[in-house]
Amino acid sequence: MEEKEGGVTTPQGFKAAGVFAGIRRKKKDMALIYSEVPCVVAGTFTTNIVKAAPVKWDMEMVKNSPYVQAVVVNSGVANTCTGAAGMSHCKDMAETTGMLLDIPAEAVLVASTGLIGKQLPMDKIKLGIQNLVPMLGSSHEDASLAAEAILTTDTRKKELAVEIELGGKKVVIGGMCKGSGMIHPNMCTMLAFITTDACISKELLQEALSSDVNDTYNMISVDGDTSTNDTVLLLANGLAGNEEIKEKNQDYQKFVEALNFINTYFAKRIAEDGEGATSLFEAKVINAADKEQAAKLAKSIISSSLTKAAIFGRDINWGRIVCAMGYSGAQFDPDGVDLYFESSVGKIKLIEDGVEMLYSKDAAEKILSQPEITVIVDIKMGCASATAWGCDLTYDYVRINAAYTSWEVPNGNRSYA
Amino acid sequence: MEEKEGGVTTPQGFKAAGVFAGIRRKKKDMALIYSEVPCVVAGTFTTNIVKAAPVKWDMEMVKNSPYVQAVVVNSGVANTCTGAAGMSHCKDMAETTGMLLDIPAEAVLVASTGLIGKQLPMDKIKLGIQNLVPMLGSSHEDASLAAEAILTTDTRKKELAVEIELGGKKVVIGGMCKGSGMIHPNMCTMLAFITTDACISKELLQEALSSDVNDTYNMISVDGDTSTNDTVLLLANGLAGNEEIKEKNQDYQKFVEALNFINTYFAKRIAEDGEGATSLFEAKVINAADKEQAAKLAKSIISSSLTKAAIFGRDINWGRIVCAMGYSGAQFDPDGVDLYFESSVGKIKLIEDGVEMLYSKDAAEKILSQPEITVIVDIKMGCASATAWGCDLTYDYVRINAAYTSWEVPNGNRSYA
Repeated sequence: MEEKEGGVTTPQGFKAAGVFAGIRRKKKDMALIYSEVPCVVAGTFTTNIVKAAPVKWDMEMVKNSPYVQAVVVNSGVANTCTGAAGMSHCKDMAETTGMLLDIPAEAVLVASTGLIGKQLPMDKIKLGIQNLVPMLGSSHEDASLAAEAILTTDTRKKELAVEIELGGKKVVIGGMCKGSGMIHPNMCTMLAFITTDACISKELLQEALSSDVNDTYNMISVDGDTSTNDTVLLLANGLAGNEEIKEKNQDYQKFVEALNFINTYFAKRIAEDGEGATSLFEAKVINAADKEQAAKLAKSIISSSLTKAAIFGRDINWGRIVCAMGYSGAQFDPDGVDLYFESSVGKIKLIEDGVEMLYSKDAAEKILSQPEITVIVDIKMGCASATAWGCDLTYDYVRINAAYTSWEVPNGNRSYA
Repeated sequence: MEEKEGGVTTPQGFKAAGVFAGIRRKKKDMALIYSEVPCVVAGTFTTNIVKAAPVKWDMEMVKNSPYVQAVVVNSGVANTCTGAAGMSHCKDMAETTGMLLDIPAEAVLVASTGLIGKQLPMDKIKLGIQNLVPMLGSSHEDASLAAEAILTTDTRKKELAVEIELGGKKVVIGGMCKGSGMIHPNMCTMLAFITTDACISKELLQEALSSDVNDTYNMISVDGDTSTNDTVLLLANGLAGNEEIKEKNQDYQKFVEALNFINTYFAKRIAEDGEGATSLFEAKVINAADKEQAAKLAKSIISSSLTKAAIFGRDINWGRIVCAMGYSGAQFDPDGVDLYFESSVGKIKLIEDGVEMLYSKDAAEKILSQPEITVIVDIKMGCASATAWGCDLTYDYVRINAAYTSWEVPNGNRSYA
């Protein structure tokens, strides 16, 4: 597997574009991904009962559309809690895009991210689509414009591509994603768009994705709020020319491994770029009785507000970590816990069998001073493990979220009066 | 029922004291409650798997001790994750107190709150107990000193008393509590101590308490972190002389009603005095199919970080509230939701049947500008309802928790090196 500087346009036959359509105040706010040939598609979506209109549309298309060929995305307005009008706007986005690309509306997937409760400004959206279509290009620069246009409070774009070889053919997987706020994916995730030129059956594509999101996006949390718009889409157009993957053979394993590499990369980038974050905070639970126990404990640690605030202050407050494990819902023996902090400058053991050890405070503080911090918890019950990723809780998280509506939307007026 | 300015010493026969023992840097840090005669006792405790030594002690005593007569409390150090030494220190606290009061150690309950992982400074604790015993008094001032000594990051003491009449006898219930951080009680709560001179059987006392905490302390959250030390103790010494309550008669109902009044008052005071909070944020879910559904939805709303930050910014961001309902785990129809904001200056409807209505932004902002804000959500499915209480998420929450260990503990050094 070779990591490449690239994004959604790196696999053969994919084009992309990103533009400013005036939905957000200043920043690019619409993106389009297009495949020259039909794709099989897999998707995972939010488990929130309140689902955005585009989530409902995509769930239907991923399930029933024979193929898809494009994804149109806007940021700024989420098209959530918008009733029948919102659903009609979403369909309108797909139809407009389909008409201009000369493909059926059912071959167009839609994603929206931003403020809940506002209707999409359809005049701007339609003009945006008209501008996107002629700009479609297959360079990395084109992919980057799209990656930029899907962001909301993210501070940087997130893209990557990897190359593998399947039966002598080069197969590429590329992708882009956005995260930042309302991030606590559950059997699903925020917005991530993965493209590949691999030839693979729709069933295995969906199985590969559904299984992998459990270890990647579903193991991150920025603020515990599971969004109404979480969506991961994986499009495969088959142009690599590899023998179609129709069973769980070695090619499938290689494909899954590459997909996991990209999804893990994105999960970490989303966590470290959480709203207001200054650090990536990783929790590894090792020697658990089973995976489920390890995952519950790891996710509880990185979701604890108190622990996140302590990480922001680079404070050696391991008690909050053990406390978060205790209320996770997973059973374990508190008197059998060993706990370590680790970062690029070293590793230190703080507790053994549930009780604080002798350790150097200076060494611990040096380890905590880094931008990527890992806590390792050994619960000595078996050989399963899990890793979860979060970020610190900072003043900036509060600043950003205390004034989101007025900050994000032009004119800052949410009433229709 | 008559509300009285009072606390744990207001019921007959109860005395209290609070002192500075040098565990915290400057503030009072030890309290003692004592009843002149033996009490029946009820208790509810944290469900966190990691339980503080005093929680383990109290669970044993509430279950097996024939009676109790005193509660000794320290703040500053939680005596959690302290192994065998911690358990021995806890027992030592009970024995020292018992010896000086001439009662068995098994008649002394213990509570600790503060930093996890540190051992109690037993020299200071013992001196503290020696100072507390001769200071015991039955005035409201004595109760207030105790109420002050149990605080950690709380900004104000919390106490109350109420009087009811049972069979012609005046019966008083008094109490004090502390909250502030690591507050997300689950079938239990933070520290609350309730005293009463009612004559009531141990079984009914426990049943009254266990049932009531579900509607009161278990419906608040400051930060989603369920503490390792949560404890509610309810001591009844029978000095009011009412006929013993041995069945669920009218006297029992009156007692339960008065207990609920005190516990609701404390739950709200703990929520509004959450670390860094500037407001009390109340969520009422009405017309639910059943109580469990209403409670899940209400608690999810007041626990959402994004919603809490929006309340801090007095931002009309109702989308986050609907989002939090959607991931609560409770089923409901998003297209059937009506939502209102209410405070002392008025009430306004923002959404009807899941979609935003025409409303005056100025009127909504005026309502949100108050220190107590209620969101009312009508889900039109039945006639059950539930109320939960939280607070806003502020810069000060982050400030307080980014440096808790160094801020709270003398010398700020957590290592033994």
